[in-house]
Amino acid sequence: MDITLVGWTEEEQTVARVAFEQAYTRAVAGLIAAIKLQAVELAGAEAVWQLHDFISIQRHVIEGRFDFRFEGLLFTFASLIKEGLLQPEELQGLDAEKLGKITAMARF
Amino acid sequence: MDITLVGWTEEEQTVARVAFEQAYTRAVAGLIAAIKLQAVELAGAEAVWQLHDFISIQRHVIEGRFDFRFEGLLFTFASLIKEGLLQPEELQGLDAEKLGKITAMARF
Repeated sequence: MDITLVGWTEEEQTVARVAFEQAYTRAVAGLIAAIKLQAVELAGAEAVWQLHDFISIQRHVIEGRFDFRFEGLLFTFASLIKEGLLQPEELQGLDAEKLGKITAMARF
Repeated sequence: MDITLVGWTEEEQTVARVAFEQAYTRAVAGLIAAIKLQAVELAGAEAVWQLHDFISIQRHVIEGRFDFRFEGLLFTFASLIKEGLLQPEELQGLDAEKLGKITAMARF
């Protein structure tokens, strides 16, 4: 997360990083809650392998989604809003053009 | 587990299958207990990825170790005894030669 985004003001970068970290924290918290729920019920090999497959997929999704260096950061924010991991209000501070693009993409 | 082992009497095959299933059940129970313990403490992304790595390794070990079709079933039993997942007494019914080989290998 310690890179400079071309075309983003310093304030916008701060807004983006804070929003990004909040969404990441929420995604991880959601995953932890799901793991705890499944762990309590664990009662056999099949359930363990299912839990393992579940974490594998979620890890892949989270690590793929939360790449701050990803060039399409606007698209990343749009997908986070769509998934309920970020509220549009948390991106206040970005310029109108970026916000407009994010909001538009989040509708798809 | 529904294969015929050449050189094994029907009784020996039953003994082997029961012992095998008991050791498998113990290995899975140990893994479940470890997962539950870690799940209770989960408090961040790093801990989740560590739990995931842990289950990945254990799954690989268990799936590799508990292959009943594995030609070296005597070696498998020896390793299960060595790991404390099986007691030599649970293999009573196998002929003396098989038991001798298993006991000898379990010492290494």
